[in-house]
Amino acid sequence: MEIASEELDRIISGALDEDRGIGDLTTECTVAADLVAAGDLLAKEDLVLAGWQVLVRTFQRVCSQVAVETLFVEGEWIPRGKVIGMVRGPAAKILTGERVALNFLQRLSGIATLTRKYVDAVADTGVIVLDTRKTTPGLRILEKYAVRAGGGRNHRFGLYDGVLIKENHIIAAGGIQEAARRARQGVDHLKRIEIEVTSLAEFGQAMDAGAEVILLDNMTVEQVNEAVRRAAHSRVLLEVSGGIQLSNIRDYAQTGVHFISVGALTHSPKAVDISLELHL
Amino acid sequence: MEIASEELDRIISGALDEDRGIGDLTTECTVAADLVAAGDLLAKEDLVLAGWQVLVRTFQRVCSQVAVETLFVEGEWIPRGKVIGMVRGPAAKILTGERVALNFLQRLSGIATLTRKYVDAVADTGVIVLDTRKTTPGLRILEKYAVRAGGGRNHRFGLYDGVLIKENHIIAAGGIQEAARRARQGVDHLKRIEIEVTSLAEFGQAMDAGAEVILLDNMTVEQVNEAVRRAAHSRVLLEVSGGIQLSNIRDYAQTGVHFISVGALTHSPKAVDISLELHL
Amino acid sequence: MEIASEELDRIISGALDEDRGIGDLTTECTVAADLVAAGDLLAKEDLVLAGWQVLVRTFQRVCSQVAVETLFVEGEWIPRGKVIGMVRGPAAKILTGERVALNFLQRLSGIATLTRKYVDAVADTGVIVLDTRKTTPGLRILEKYAVRAGGGRNHRFGLYDGVLIKENHIIAAGGIQEAARRARQGVDHLKRIEIEVTSLAEFGQAMDAGAEVILLDNMTVEQVNEAVRRAAHSRVLLEVSGGIQLSNIRDYAQTGVHFISVGALTHSPKAVDISLELHL
Amino acid sequence: MEIASEELDRIISGALDEDRGIGDLTTECTVAADLVAAGDLLAKEDLVLAGWQVLVRTFQRVCSQVAVETLFVEGEWIPRGKVIGMVRGPAAKILTGERVALNFLQRLSGIATLTRKYVDAVADTGVIVLDTRKTTPGLRILEKYAVRAGGGRNHRFGLYDGVLIKENHIIAAGGIQEAARRARQGVDHLKRIEIEVTSLAEFGQAMDAGAEVILLDNMTVEQVNEAVRRAAHSRVLLEVSGGIQLSNIRDYAQTGVHFISVGALTHSPKAVDISLELHL
Amino acid sequence: MEIASEELDRIISGALDEDRGIGDLTTECTVAADLVAAGDLLAKEDLVLAGWQVLVRTFQRVCSQVAVETLFVEGEWIPRGKVIGMVRGPAAKILTGERVALNFLQRLSGIATLTRKYVDAVADTGVIVLDTRKTTPGLRILEKYAVRAGGGRNHRFGLYDGVLIKENHIIAAGGIQEAARRARQGVDHLKRIEIEVTSLAEFGQAMDAGAEVILLDNMTVEQVNEAVRRAAHSRVLLEVSGGIQLSNIRDYAQTGVHFISVGALTHSPKAVDISLELHL
Amino acid sequence: MEIASEELDRIISGALDEDRGIGDLTTECTVAADLVAAGDLLAKEDLVLAGWQVLVRTFQRVCSQVAVETLFVEGEWIPRGKVIGMVRGPAAKILTGERVALNFLQRLSGIATLTRKYVDAVADTGVIVLDTRKTTPGLRILEKYAVRAGGGRNHRFGLYDGVLIKENHIIAAGGIQEAARRARQGVDHLKRIEIEVTSLAEFGQAMDAGAEVILLDNMTVEQVNEAVRRAAHSRVLLEVSGGIQLSNIRDYAQTGVHFISVGALTHSPKAVDISLELHL
Repeated sequence: MEIASEELDRIISGALDEDRGIGDLTTECTVAADLVAAGDLLAKEDLVLAGWQVLVRTFQRVCSQVAVETLFVEGEWIPRGKVIGMVRGPAAKILTGERVALNFLQRLSGIATLTRKYVDAVADTGVIVLDTRKTTPGLRILEKYAVRAGGGRNHRFGLYDGVLIKENHIIAAGGIQEAARRARQGVDHLKRIEIEVTSLAEFGQAMDAGAEVILLDNMTVEQVNEAVRRAAHSRVLLEVSGGIQLSNIRDYAQTGVHFISVGALTHSPKAVDISLELHL
Repeated sequence: MEIASEELDRIISGALDEDRGIGDLTTECTVAADLVAAGDLLAKEDLVLAGWQVLVRTFQRVCSQVAVETLFVEGEWIPRGKVIGMVRGPAAKILTGERVALNFLQRLSGIATLTRKYVDAVADTGVIVLDTRKTTPGLRILEKYAVRAGGGRNHRFGLYDGVLIKENHIIAAGGIQEAARRARQGVDHLKRIEIEVTSLAEFGQAMDAGAEVILLDNMTVEQVNEAVRRAAHSRVLLEVSGGIQLSNIRDYAQTGVHFISVGALTHSPKAVDISLELHL
Repeated sequence: MEIASEELDRIISGALDEDRGIGDLTTECTVAADLVAAGDLLAKEDLVLAGWQVLVRTFQRVCSQVAVETLFVEGEWIPRGKVIGMVRGPAAKILTGERVALNFLQRLSGIATLTRKYVDAVADTGVIVLDTRKTTPGLRILEKYAVRAGGGRNHRFGLYDGVLIKENHIIAAGGIQEAARRARQGVDHLKRIEIEVTSLAEFGQAMDAGAEVILLDNMTVEQVNEAVRRAAHSRVLLEVSGGIQLSNIRDYAQTGVHFISVGALTHSPKAVDISLELHL
Repeated sequence: MEIASEELDRIISGALDEDRGIGDLTTECTVAADLVAAGDLLAKEDLVLAGWQVLVRTFQRVCSQVAVETLFVEGEWIPRGKVIGMVRGPAAKILTGERVALNFLQRLSGIATLTRKYVDAVADTGVIVLDTRKTTPGLRILEKYAVRAGGGRNHRFGLYDGVLIKENHIIAAGGIQEAARRARQGVDHLKRIEIEVTSLAEFGQAMDAGAEVILLDNMTVEQVNEAVRRAAHSRVLLEVSGGIQLSNIRDYAQTGVHFISVGALTHSPKAVDISLELHL
Repeated sequence: MEIASEELDRIISGALDEDRGIGDLTTECTVAADLVAAGDLLAKEDLVLAGWQVLVRTFQRVCSQVAVETLFVEGEWIPRGKVIGMVRGPAAKILTGERVALNFLQRLSGIATLTRKYVDAVADTGVIVLDTRKTTPGLRILEKYAVRAGGGRNHRFGLYDGVLIKENHIIAAGGIQEAARRARQGVDHLKRIEIEVTSLAEFGQAMDAGAEVILLDNMTVEQVNEAVRRAAHSRVLLEVSGGIQLSNIRDYAQTGVHFISVGALTHSPKAVDISLELHL
Repeated sequence: MEIASEELDRIISGALDEDRGIGDLTTECTVAADLVAAGDLLAKEDLVLAGWQVLVRTFQRVCSQVAVETLFVEGEWIPRGKVIGMVRGPAAKILTGERVALNFLQRLSGIATLTRKYVDAVADTGVIVLDTRKTTPGLRILEKYAVRAGGGRNHRFGLYDGVLIKENHIIAAGGIQEAARRARQGVDHLKRIEIEVTSLAEFGQAMDAGAEVILLDNMTVEQVNEAVRRAAHSRVLLEVSGGIQLSNIRDYAQTGVHFISVGALTHSPKAVDISLELHL
């Protein structure tokens, strides 16, 4: 999914307002308005690049005369010490936009870098690594983009574009069968129904209820193996979630499930370290 | 600083729109509108609470009939396994608001929990732990609030409310002396001037330039010790930053500086694990 | 799908601004601010009610002291001459809100009334009448609500929540097979793939391409009959569209397809005639 | 009245957001980003063109590289089968914008086409056909523009820019004389006062009260004839409304009134059928 | 004209944001959150009150627990030294809202006070004092309200609700006759046409062109006298503007014109001095 | 401080909406769309120019084809009778933008002109003339800019970027000592603490409390002299406010204080008279 440029500009504009308010006191006083400078964006640790266009548009919203360029592409692995790209233009404008631009790039590249680790961990198993809705409020479209840049795929974007019957819905509806029936009745014909289960007994009920996708939540590898076996001759798609870490994802991947979703991709990434070094 | 309720509502409203869009497909189909339920918010790991009011307002924006309560206060340490609080109201509305409410609470408590660790690490040294501008775009006021809940204090909120002459400004102005002079000339009389330095030589120039606050960036403990010694008979305030971790912050704190600022508090906190368990 | 109250208020507020601007010149001059009045909302033709809550909120945004009530429910058939409901409160406020409130109610009830005719025409065939994306810009959530009130069901809400490969996509992708493959690859696992076809030959290709829903566009009843026969032992869902009118919808419905979508429900409904008669 | 380009962009932007949300799932998957295509916009029924600029700006907001052109002008009659215009640019962007662009053009041309029929029906009588405030909430400026394109003229734009004392105001004020007096007292000196009357008795009162414009509502042709006769030597302007249809508008027009206002122009137009046919 | 409460809240909210930003640093630190205080609003010079409700809503947007009351009414003359009203509630909230509330009240009462002087100066002449469009950008509805509170009346609110053909329009149209003809042709039938003239020759042309209102701009009292004489047997309304001051307005008023418009009412009022004196 | 172009455009756009609403009735009827004209902006009294860029952007937001130029610079003194600048472009667009553009320019130049008088009055004393927060709601950034153009400097921009403990805070905190202690505790280390005092006794307390800036409010010249004497060997900065007028500012300036703040600069400036004279 592309990120609509208007939506992107709205997010960037909000971030600039938040940081800049009525103006950049320090820079406006200390830096001559006509001074032109250039700067290198430096990878201070290994990273997978994501969000370069967000950085570019951030600088350009501050000042259309700031030019930014890179030879890397989104999703590319960049080793520590490399110059990621260059920025050039009015020094004052570069300094005003620097922090916001880096806040975006460091966070998004952090997500892509973490995603890449999970994706690499399941290499050759055919499993697809998915994100969740555990994203930063206000930045979901950017963070889901970063997951794709890192090699993952996206689960639904929100409550509005996909059906996932979770444990609490099942409790509220009075059972898997009834919850599934209500969903099929009420949801349009272009949606599949996914049901979350936490035991093999529930898994059986979900199969009987006609689930098109089943989410195996917090199950052991053995339980997942058994679910895969039982679903072998159906068309049902299987997804695993809950307690997935880099240390165990491959075990789950080798069971033969189709998807593994990982909340940590977006709720706890480490920002990668990138600095801007200015020179006149 | 209080968080203005209108600003808070604006952020929450944006987050709900982002997740809910035209509606919660699953819940609206599967959960009866008149079903009332209660739920426990459970700490699944040790944490310092921050953002409870954000969770409360999130649920109440979804539906004013959802009641939420807790016996804990902001900044309180809560051990794993405790029930943090209870929610009660229309089951459908609780389920619709759950993810957004938790996304806020887990992130903000994550920041407070991390901050507490840094604050505890400098206990009895008199040093104040500060945040930076390395915050999530759009959430700065919430994240800086969470730092305070964790026992830290805030550095400036943005480019507009404080003067910090950084290395790039010095390069652009042609030296510390000139940068300081321009700042004093251009900035209103209610602001102090802070100057970032990366060596003892620069430190000396900053002292001579009349800096009221000096930021010692990426210096060794030995260098910081020397700076403290040289500043002993002045009124200048000293702040340390760069490369600060839980493993070394106490060493820096014992030098006698006044402030240590830590970017990781807000750029790389781990979300704490909190779940909502519903019962009818 | 419920209509989120904030979204509803945003639409109503926009409509009131559009009509009222800096104020209601006539009413503010001619009607005493403290004059209380009541009024009957009168059905001047047979109609199916839809949008009553929109009318209520419109009056209440003008003035919270305006009370509105009805004994009818959404989707109920109301014969010409009946009083639909009553409004009571400050006369000046009722007059200021009257036109906007009626513009909403007349349009939405017009859609529900037209939908009901189509639904009645396919009674006992098991066919579900669907709407399309041919809605009034800005009012889609209200118009799709009115379709449901009239007894129809909703197709996707927009480009973002469902996949429908239309003729132009097929041309652009270079064929049905390739378009379907790309969609399955790129779209999340909670969406079904619908493909639009205009001939039995294309229908066969769509079946082969693994379409989960097939839209039979502008086909004759005979062609639709044949498609139903060929799909009999598959799980594929069939939808008919194009050129559907009250005079021919039953013929299509009797073929055994699952869905018939009708653009006219929202692009060309006649507003039903409703008047407000005030008395002191 | 021109439509301010910012206002137009605001409406179009809202419509695109409504349809596109987080993105066009189908197109982004199935259509190569660099594929260029052209398309013909085809009149599938006779129509009067209105809203071409809205269509152009809609496509250009989706992508500035989409070019659109036509040889027709607004208000021109176009027979069924004609190509109205051409669009050319990135295929994916054309497909994303297609439905919204057509929703505007079909609705506005529908209004212009209907207006033209009314205007033609009163040809050579000197009567001016007017619209009303019975417009689609949110689209009034566009719909009133379409009326002008069809050859009609606009009544007031809202409650704020013209004075029309209606039956309910008269009831609330306690009579025509008093309502008129209050209006003249309270309204600025650049407005005329229009009074709605429903009988010849009220007409007489409105004349005595100094009405500058009188709206003859739901009167018979005979009553209107008599009103025209009585007003012959005054400067008062006469307007007819209520129950006007294509079948009777000429009878009213021949009475010699100056204006006839027709709510159906905007509350119940049929969208004209226009299709986009893409070719590579 | 009432001021719509939503519009008023929008203006107040913008003003509070502008002043308060992320928070009131001083008050939040120095004043206990639970401290309750009261305060007197004191007239430090003679004034005509206008904008009390703006002050009330400003305090209540800061905190709904702040109560404000007065015994005076809008437009009432208040002598220096009087207590205008009282405010009571959380001390911190009163202090945070004080400046914005007073900025509104001092400005609006300043306009009302100045307007009253002009109105008093034409007492018993029958002339109506009008404002102009020379208002503060963003505050027109409030400033025009203050003019009414001071006893003046409003000219048109903007370019959109009244027709005034000024000298530059006449130049552009090629003469008074042509400008008037075009206006009558293009403007709806609920508007009168006003024409600005600067000489008796132009006045004659405006009469001939059918002007319903004529604005005599920058004419001498003698010229105005002559214009009044010539218009005696017509229905045309006469307005005077240009160079009107307190020292000469009565001379113009005694000529028998209907209206005198005064730009200074809103472009150069002196804020009246009002202070808030807090006590615990 | 620069004015961010987005913020400026937001203000201008609001002002144009306010004046133009749905359109400029008079101009759109009377002036041909393709007529090009030029106009001179004429200083009708002596003035100091401020806000030229606001005027330029106002015209350009109305129409990008309007060109505006001047040979003067911001802050330059322009004698009565001079042509300030020229505008050229579509006549209709110039006329539509004229009033809003002039409303800005006349107000801002009025502030600059008044500020210049105060600045000239303290020539050679070394005193800096400051503004206050007594600005027009919504226009603070423009008005503070105009003060700078006139040769003054800005006090804090709002409650959020500077600390000023006023009399009411002292009352609420229970004394100067306690108020200062709380502020130093709660406010970040980049802010100085300013305390307002009204007597020499309070002045002494403020000195003892460690105030970095002291505001001497409503004191006599003699009192100020004494305060200057007592502060001679400290680093404290002294500011005077309250009752400052052109007639007495020099007396205060000669005491040796550093700053004098003057509310009248922004709360009661007289708009300077500037006219636009159009020619074809």
